[in-house]
Amino acid sequence: MTAFETTRPLRFGDCDPSGIAYFPSYMNMLVGVTEDLFAEVGFPWPRLARERNLTTPTVRLDVTFTRPGIEGDTLAWRCAVVRIGRTSLDLRHEVAAAEPLWRAEQRLVATMHDTRRPVPWPNDLRLALEPYHG
Amino acid sequence: MTAFETTRPLRFGDCDPSGIAYFPSYMNMLVGVTEDLFAEVGFPWPRLARERNLTTPTVRLDVTFTRPGIEGDTLAWRCAVVRIGRTSLDLRHEVAAAEPLWRAEQRLVATMHDTRRPVPWPNDLRLALEPYHG
Amino acid sequence: MTAFETTRPLRFGDCDPSGIAYFPSYMNMLVGVTEDLFAEVGFPWPRLARERNLTTPTVRLDVTFTRPGIEGDTLAWRCAVVRIGRTSLDLRHEVAAAEPLWRAEQRLVATMHDTRRPVPWPNDLRLALEPYHG
Amino acid sequence: MTAFETTRPLRFGDCDPSGIAYFPSYMNMLVGVTEDLFAEVGFPWPRLARERNLTTPTVRLDVTFTRPGIEGDTLAWRCAVVRIGRTSLDLRHEVAAAEPLWRAEQRLVATMHDTRRPVPWPNDLRLALEPYHG
Repeated sequence: MTAFETTRPLRFGDCDPSGIAYFPSYMNMLVGVTEDLFAEVGFPWPRLARERNLTTPTVRLDVTFTRPGIEGDTLAWRCAVVRIGRTSLDLRHEVAAAEPLWRAEQRLVATMHDTRRPVPWPNDLRLALEPYHG
Repeated sequence: MTAFETTRPLRFGDCDPSGIAYFPSYMNMLVGVTEDLFAEVGFPWPRLARERNLTTPTVRLDVTFTRPGIEGDTLAWRCAVVRIGRTSLDLRHEVAAAEPLWRAEQRLVATMHDTRRPVPWPNDLRLALEPYHG
Repeated sequence: MTAFETTRPLRFGDCDPSGIAYFPSYMNMLVGVTEDLFAEVGFPWPRLARERNLTTPTVRLDVTFTRPGIEGDTLAWRCAVVRIGRTSLDLRHEVAAAEPLWRAEQRLVATMHDTRRPVPWPNDLRLALEPYHG
Repeated sequence: MTAFETTRPLRFGDCDPSGIAYFPSYMNMLVGVTEDLFAEVGFPWPRLARERNLTTPTVRLDVTFTRPGIEGDTLAWRCAVVRIGRTSLDLRHEVAAAEPLWRAEQRLVATMHDTRRPVPWPNDLRLALEPYHG
């Protein structure tokens, strides 16, 4: 079992006047990587919303920034499933350039789009995520 | 002693296709509120960088989202100094609309702009932040 | 008759590694100022969408950047109604700090939220916008 | 001679509460595509700033939005050199999903990083851009 891996360029527009990555841009990328994980396992978010009435808001996020990302870096991104609860999903993101830069623990909750209430993960989605335990 | 308080509108552009706040936009606001705290105590970031060679990158961030923010909400923001270490600063952000929405613990580190190494907080800045223990 | 006027801080997070305003951040502000104009005249966008099934997408935007905005600038923003067509609305944005920085001509179109087709502006909204011819 | 072509996903985080692309996110992508063009021709921006003291701010931007982009679209992006002036560079961006969505005319100006004054394009950079006349 292995994590979902991808890369992201650290662009001019992601960096701040002190010349390093602006962390809210990292958070925007993190949402995009989580989105890519769901697409990778066959449940792209637009279809999940349309066909299952399901969204996946984040309820908890713990981030540790170890080294600054520099404009022009290629970020190697590793996103692993840590635990699939009844309605929750815990992911671990590890982001490195030449060296590790930062990591995040993220908890999502399966949520009905219309009522905004938690629901158990559908079984097929749960099974599709299983292989990404990192 | 009292926290720094401000408000932020939750705009159309801060919300996502599911109709609620997009959390990376919250993080962008959070940086702006921290920036406002430094300006409030007399040390705006551009001057801190120019005159003291000092930047304040975030090294740790723990966020709990309790309720979704809705487009059009006015966010009541409370930012309190939790602890001023030798080189670190711990802040607590509490954000509410009609009810509490989310909270964050943020650690900044006083950092030399050119060398990117931690330095002790200047004494005048430390004294200026003291009253904002919440 | 007079334009809608407001201010915006040019924050750390709006600036790029070359130390000046990142223009996509300006565009985000521009949408927010247009949003504020609609709220000012009594038609906030969330209610417009909910009660009138109306959204106001931008179909044309011409921007001229004359001088760079600098981190810490306070932007004086002037947004004037240039012309209210049957389904279109032309706005002119003028943004200055100590001196004029940039200006934009923006065309919005009244659009049904569900069908995404243009519709004539409701008469009460048209009347409410009239005083802001600049 | 042929334009620079690339693709961009239209992500959840690029879309707004009305379910379509938020145009300031398009502008952020546009800067990234221009950045990719410069890297493609051998002059990545971080090196251009460091080794040639050169930045490329945008001074003019005219955008026409024809159809809304929808969450999940893959954007086919075409960026062509229209004209290389002494200090200016005119680019045309054309963005399509199943059908054309929007287009932009962008003018950049070669600018000294420290003085913020226009300078003629270096000859090697000019030659490298020539093949991308679209």
